[in-house]
Amino acid sequence: MSDAKIRRPRAETPKGFRDYFGAEVTTRKAMLDRITAVYHRYGFDPLETSAVETVESLGKFLPDVDRPNEGVFAWQDEDADWLALRYDLTAPLARVAAQYRNDLPSPYRRYAMGPVWRNEKPGPGRFRQFYQCDADTVGAPSVAADAEICAMLADALEEVGIPRGDYIIKVNNRKVLNGVMEVAGLSGDDKEAERGIVLRAIDKIDRLGDAGVRALLGEGRKDESGDFTKGAGLNADQAEVVMGFIHAKRDSGAETAARLRELVGTSALGLEGVGELETIASLLSAQGYGPDRIVIDPGVVRGLGYYTGPVFEAELTFEILDEKGRKRQFGSVAGGGRYDDLVKRFTGQAVPATGVSIGVDRLLAALHAKGRVTADTTGPVVVTVMDRDRMADYMGMVADLRAADIRAEVYLGNPKNFGNQLKYADKRGSPVAVIQGGDEAAKGTVILKDLVLGARIAASATLEEWKDRPAQVEVPRADLVAAVRRMLAGA
Amino acid sequence: MSDAKIRRPRAETPKGFRDYFGAEVTTRKAMLDRITAVYHRYGFDPLETSAVETVESLGKFLPDVDRPNEGVFAWQDEDADWLALRYDLTAPLARVAAQYRNDLPSPYRRYAMGPVWRNEKPGPGRFRQFYQCDADTVGAPSVAADAEICAMLADALEEVGIPRGDYIIKVNNRKVLNGVMEVAGLSGDDKEAERGIVLRAIDKIDRLGDAGVRALLGEGRKDESGDFTKGAGLNADQAEVVMGFIHAKRDSGAETAARLRELVGTSALGLEGVGELETIASLLSAQGYGPDRIVIDPGVVRGLGYYTGPVFEAELTFEILDEKGRKRQFGSVAGGGRYDDLVKRFTGQAVPATGVSIGVDRLLAALHAKGRVTADTTGPVVVTVMDRDRMADYMGMVADLRAADIRAEVYLGNPKNFGNQLKYADKRGSPVAVIQGGDEAAKGTVILKDLVLGARIAASATLEEWKDRPAQVEVPRADLVAAVRRMLAGA
Repeated sequence: MSDAKIRRPRAETPKGFRDYFGAEVTTRKAMLDRITAVYHRYGFDPLETSAVETVESLGKFLPDVDRPNEGVFAWQDEDADWLALRYDLTAPLARVAAQYRNDLPSPYRRYAMGPVWRNEKPGPGRFRQFYQCDADTVGAPSVAADAEICAMLADALEEVGIPRGDYIIKVNNRKVLNGVMEVAGLSGDDKEAERGIVLRAIDKIDRLGDAGVRALLGEGRKDESGDFTKGAGLNADQAEVVMGFIHAKRDSGAETAARLRELVGTSALGLEGVGELETIASLLSAQGYGPDRIVIDPGVVRGLGYYTGPVFEAELTFEILDEKGRKRQFGSVAGGGRYDDLVKRFTGQAVPATGVSIGVDRLLAALHAKGRVTADTTGPVVVTVMDRDRMADYMGMVADLRAADIRAEVYLGNPKNFGNQLKYADKRGSPVAVIQGGDEAAKGTVILKDLVLGARIAASATLEEWKDRPAQVEVPRADLVAAVRRMLAGA
Repeated sequence: MSDAKIRRPRAETPKGFRDYFGAEVTTRKAMLDRITAVYHRYGFDPLETSAVETVESLGKFLPDVDRPNEGVFAWQDEDADWLALRYDLTAPLARVAAQYRNDLPSPYRRYAMGPVWRNEKPGPGRFRQFYQCDADTVGAPSVAADAEICAMLADALEEVGIPRGDYIIKVNNRKVLNGVMEVAGLSGDDKEAERGIVLRAIDKIDRLGDAGVRALLGEGRKDESGDFTKGAGLNADQAEVVMGFIHAKRDSGAETAARLRELVGTSALGLEGVGELETIASLLSAQGYGPDRIVIDPGVVRGLGYYTGPVFEAELTFEILDEKGRKRQFGSVAGGGRYDDLVKRFTGQAVPATGVSIGVDRLLAALHAKGRVTADTTGPVVVTVMDRDRMADYMGMVADLRAADIRAEVYLGNPKNFGNQLKYADKRGSPVAVIQGGDEAAKGTVILKDLVLGARIAASATLEEWKDRPAQVEVPRADLVAAVRRMLAGA
């Protein structure tokens, strides 16, 4: 820094970060407000921790990343403490649950929404700061808590504008997979490496397909670049059990459960897992959440390595066009599960916890794709300035409009060029321009230009169909508010 | 880090940071939502920049701090770029205004709210992460933009619950002070050091009083510790002009302006500044913002060193008790002004800008002091669990309540000890507990306990006055929602 050349600083967003303008902010806020309302109705309380945590307290909980500390923005405080920006909202929850364990209600239902930071290589659509929106229940051992999270997730999706039928919440259970591993002979302490390979292998089913996963379950797999990944060394029968788990979904929850029981055989843990899935399904069904919304699906494998019991994933089932113009399902927008060991590293005591994280940007993209974005993005009424000596009059007009709760502003740039004022109104997405020159001022009138109608006329290039609706009216100044209101209602 | 001993991490918020729970989050959000509505009505658009900026782009704009880089959390990226957490919302605005200057509407009205970070020594009530809530207009040279900001600030204060009469917005102008300095013979390039001393001196008027400031304007001042601060070296006549400026406020705006004209004499810049103050007052007066809300007051000196034209400060005038039990005015909750040089360091072109920053925590404290906090802080209805085999029934009850938009939850802890369930409901601030044991289930009824009434009875220790209102009722299960609604309405 000290020997930097003296020059103008670059006006640039740092690499991997971005700025959000106008409707990008309001549409996200509107969506998060709706989700918040659902979480609130379910009895969840907000928690807002600071962006900064000690590195010590953050620990290595980032799922799906092998070396999490490398993925964090960290620096050393003057006290020699290492501080870092939070990489998710779960690690701060674990810290809070430990720190305030004597004061918080138990179970503690909390929601949190806000930015998180990842010190990763940025890419297209991949940013180093992004929003998460989580809800978790800490201290509830029963799967009733997991069922509640699933129901709440379904309600939240519908509340923001994803209609029933356009989403499905899939539920799986890590315990069933552990049972499957037992049956495949992978239970002992000496098999931890193999279990890890199996977990990572099935996590890749979407990308590698059955053959790729089978290769990783067996001897290993060479990828297109020629790199070899060592496999778990399972024989064909063992691999069959694992593949059977991934493909255990049947037409009904009862049939799927029956198939899973078959697979886990006599494994007590596996059977417990299947029982949990059945309990979740029956609790949800009693509340009216049937398999059209929430289903048992052992094909949900993402995060199975991280979670310790039930695992959930919300998928949007409608089709969009991908970047190459091909149809594909929109896919996952939220995921979660039970993670019973998170608080233990602080206190030594295991505390049961379960929760869900909504991918805010993904869900917002889905709402855009469905045309379900709800925030009002109309620009303000623009009062133009014909005579700069009468600024007080123009400001009086916007004051009247604002007092009537109409979004309005006076043009505050250089008023010399009137065309610039109309260009400004256009850039602002303004629905109405208000004009008062000397003549109108003398008569006590104002001219209103309907800019929405004007744009339509310009686009269709025929005035004929609009002839009954004037794009411009002159009204008494005293009628300004009422006349603007009429024009806005027509637009 | 590599040689740290293996031990449990401490579950601690980092020093100088804090966590916000429940109502602390919702009350702030409710306040910010109300302010947002006012900003929106005035035509301001939201902007959300990332928390992280390059150190180069942040520059040294932190007002009131001599060595701003020391006050920033910064770290070096793997690309050797220095990154830092933003210390305010103005520096990112300057970067955005330069970066997107060809795309943004001009003038650009934007608001921003969010956390900022200062790497300063934490103290009581002084945190290293706190909220700011700013609105600025970039590219509007006219003081009409300043007047608009003042009017909007008044509206925002009233909207969040500060009644008219409990606040005053004071307006001053740096140009008048510059005129005063000219008159005092401090204009030339060779007097920059003296002008700096004068600016810092008058900024301390609240703390040092007239005598202390006079000393700093003259030879200098020795403080209680014996440290000597060099003065500006003004003679008594020169100092008198400066002190006259600070105390120029008269009963009416016209009298204050007349007094200021007297002080600035023939300084063209000073007279221009006085004219701007008069224009602001007359524009505001035309919109109904009289001196009961917004006044010319040259006693506002905070930030005069930073701003280049009009300067504003919002003070709350009602009294509170300080930590020693003495009455004092609540004081400042917002401040701002015109800063025409902010974008110039990026582009070389001066861009006029004016804006205001609301101290979110201060304003929230004021609302608490006035009992004007508006968020709903009622806890959920708690459905207790008498028989864990009937969890589906209890979850059906909360589903019915939630479907009727009543905040509700089922107890998800260990249900063995019923007393713990009621303690939990108490900790949650629950208004109603729902109970259904085996007898009630057989009869198809539920018992509702009015916990608000129960708490009142417990507090007054006399049942007499409540005898017409039962603290507990048994109703048919089918009437659950209606009966809870009645109980909530009575509470």
